[in-house]
Amino acid sequence: MFKKILIANRGEIAVRIIRACQELNIKTVAVYSTADKDALHMQLADEAVCIGPSKANESYLNIHNILSAAVLTGAEAIHPGFGFLSENSTFAAMCEEVNVSFIGPKKEVIDQMGNKSNARDMMKKANVPVVPGSDRSITEFEEVKDMVDEIGLPVIIKAVAGGGGKGMRMVYSEAELEANFLQAQSESKAAFDDDRMYVERIIAPAKHIEVQILGDHYGNVIHLGERDCSLQRNHQKILEEAPGPSLTEETRQRICQSAVAAAKTVGYENAGTIEFLVDTDENFYFMEMNTRIQVEHPITEMITAVDIVKEQIKIASGEPLSLTQADVTLTGHAIECRINAENPSFNFAPSPGTIEFLNIPSGGLGLRVDTAMYAGAVIPPYYDAMIAKVITHGNSRAEAISKMDRALNEMVIEGIQTNLDFHIYLLHDEDFKSGHYTTDTLKNIIIPRWLGNKEANG
Amino acid sequence: MFKKILIANRGEIAVRIIRACQELNIKTVAVYSTADKDALHMQLADEAVCIGPSKANESYLNIHNILSAAVLTGAEAIHPGFGFLSENSTFAAMCEEVNVSFIGPKKEVIDQMGNKSNARDMMKKANVPVVPGSDRSITEFEEVKDMVDEIGLPVIIKAVAGGGGKGMRMVYSEAELEANFLQAQSESKAAFDDDRMYVERIIAPAKHIEVQILGDHYGNVIHLGERDCSLQRNHQKILEEAPGPSLTEETRQRICQSAVAAAKTVGYENAGTIEFLVDTDENFYFMEMNTRIQVEHPITEMITAVDIVKEQIKIASGEPLSLTQADVTLTGHAIECRINAENPSFNFAPSPGTIEFLNIPSGGLGLRVDTAMYAGAVIPPYYDAMIAKVITHGNSRAEAISKMDRALNEMVIEGIQTNLDFHIYLLHDEDFKSGHYTTDTLKNIIIPRWLGNKEANG
Repeated sequence: MFKKILIANRGEIAVRIIRACQELNIKTVAVYSTADKDALHMQLADEAVCIGPSKANESYLNIHNILSAAVLTGAEAIHPGFGFLSENSTFAAMCEEVNVSFIGPKKEVIDQMGNKSNARDMMKKANVPVVPGSDRSITEFEEVKDMVDEIGLPVIIKAVAGGGGKGMRMVYSEAELEANFLQAQSESKAAFDDDRMYVERIIAPAKHIEVQILGDHYGNVIHLGERDCSLQRNHQKILEEAPGPSLTEETRQRICQSAVAAAKTVGYENAGTIEFLVDTDENFYFMEMNTRIQVEHPITEMITAVDIVKEQIKIASGEPLSLTQADVTLTGHAIECRINAENPSFNFAPSPGTIEFLNIPSGGLGLRVDTAMYAGAVIPPYYDAMIAKVITHGNSRAEAISKMDRALNEMVIEGIQTNLDFHIYLLHDEDFKSGHYTTDTLKNIIIPRWLGNKEANG
Repeated sequence: MFKKILIANRGEIAVRIIRACQELNIKTVAVYSTADKDALHMQLADEAVCIGPSKANESYLNIHNILSAAVLTGAEAIHPGFGFLSENSTFAAMCEEVNVSFIGPKKEVIDQMGNKSNARDMMKKANVPVVPGSDRSITEFEEVKDMVDEIGLPVIIKAVAGGGGKGMRMVYSEAELEANFLQAQSESKAAFDDDRMYVERIIAPAKHIEVQILGDHYGNVIHLGERDCSLQRNHQKILEEAPGPSLTEETRQRICQSAVAAAKTVGYENAGTIEFLVDTDENFYFMEMNTRIQVEHPITEMITAVDIVKEQIKIASGEPLSLTQADVTLTGHAIECRINAENPSFNFAPSPGTIEFLNIPSGGLGLRVDTAMYAGAVIPPYYDAMIAKVITHGNSRAEAISKMDRALNEMVIEGIQTNLDFHIYLLHDEDFKSGHYTTDTLKNIIIPRWLGNKEANG
């Protein structure tokens, strides 16, 4: 087992990893930007190294400084957390070069799953259904037209090099197709100097269902059940639950089996997540694979009692999986609410600042709060706006919801705007309560004016 | 189900009960003394009624004021928590008289189990082994002598009316017997105007093992496994764990079966605990029954996923048990550390005062902190000195211990002295780590001078 691990991240996930290391009796090295000089992750670690100024690309994305910190402190492994360098195969490769273990899959697998068309090829090989669409990049409109004739409308046109919505268009009628394709392509050319596009059928209304996978260095791959992450705003997950509240047991089994097949086909090692879209008839389609730990991993931990971060570390150190598929039992129901520093009254605009008073709900059975915040802590404007993940676990979904309602009503965050009241409101929403919500549900929800921004409203 | 419950208690257990009520959608009424005017239990409840001045016998033991509060607020039931009026059969009877449900067993059962010789009779009827000793009260030395001839030495002589160590003597040789008996008897006569005594074999070294019982109004009784509560100082439990780390599976089964038989024999309803002494050969002897929720109930909740407080409320409202014995599975291992406001460097003298800064450990899988404290909260000198119960749950005992170590090292309590460092020290003690500790272990532990009282030591 490793004696010292560097955590190349910040915020609650860095704290989460440091705590797992402490429980495994592993020393920790935190890295931090100047904006995070008083951050909890930096305080909790055994050692802390400043890796640059506030902006992420000069600090948390600064491969050279992070690797220097690892070598100088004698860290044997790096845990990348999520975001930042967690899916950067160059970083994984450079870790290898300086003889530091990257806690994640092999760099080749990161590359393979990060490339949309490679990922689709692999999924087809594993007999995992993919969203109908182009398997290869398209540059000519004629190809798009043929594709649409084959798969039908509506479709989404995306830039191969795309990101941040650039070079992306939704097309609902044939009349709109050509103009939209050409616009998207020229946008892509301008933004990424790349005119390769692809086309995919829009699956909607649909659920976003993802399966947690663990694989070791010896070819063992298991799943830890699925999560329903359909409640999203601007592609940001807001509230997740496990198991999926509306899936039939048969579909659950089929999706989880597909995910295991997919992970085995790519030779997946460490923790990963395979994301699917599930339509109203419970047909499911591979969307993408995240080759890292996810924000919402705690809900899976709550229903399986498997500590995924500890498993990641053990796997990276060469241990075989500590459990087989037969050992995995799903118990009860878990929900996670992401409490963010943002203002629901101003279209959820980020609300960085200093937390003046903080009461983290605690106590009783099945309540967990993962946070790096404390009274006096600062949420800098440079990174994501997450304050805390509040997670509840109950014997039933109803119990997990009532526990969440109780916990969020006890939570107090002063000094900044938050989406806390929005979450409480959401818990009482009929679509949420039914479990039959989709990725469109949050688009259609009408947010009452009294939510958020209490100070501004007097 | 009840619509409104009054909680006749304070501190973390009152908060624990209020939270359970909120999760069951039941309104709550807190009662508080003037010393607790800013206490969390009073802030969290829907309504709060002041029931008297600081001293417990004028407030939390003031039956008249508490019942008036219940009637005036329309509470349908009273949860007594632990301590205070929780095992007071007069209180239970008076609740009944004003048509308020007492959340606990029938008053006759409280009486029966509260009377030592009745309890022994019942246990014999249930074929539960009792500590060898006198079944009836003794007033003459000749009877004591005969008893000792029968059961052997060492023995403890206790006053029937006893309490607080008055009228109690340990006798290790026959030469000491007469003098000790006469002294104890005259002490009892002076203190309680009662010269009735009884004699019991001292079982030592022994483990204190207790079994959690749940019974409903329909004759169903189940156990939720046992707890090892042997780590005690002056008969105060300090650290508890479940399951018992040294018991053989066969003994565990036998003790738990005995506890169920005992509870069925007395017609036990609601949550209760049967305490046993277990000697080094794993012979076990009934000690007493606690007819209420226990401080250490969370560790049982962690390994069974049964919310005991919710079960108590459901049982009292007339619901049958929500699970059968076959539904109960013990998963993993749980530990509770009682963090008290006391000074290990001054023989654990209470250290009441204001908590100036508080960091409650949180995050990760299997950590729970039950507390009524917050930064700025006051621990009054009038009641017990408990600050928080830190509970961890792991897949193994080693994991639960390492998690506790991590959590306690993150905990910060400023403004008062605490036994936090003592707990951290204890986690690394070889006797504790082996699991083979007894009720004598804490008597023999040498407390390093650096523990506690950091301020006084500079």
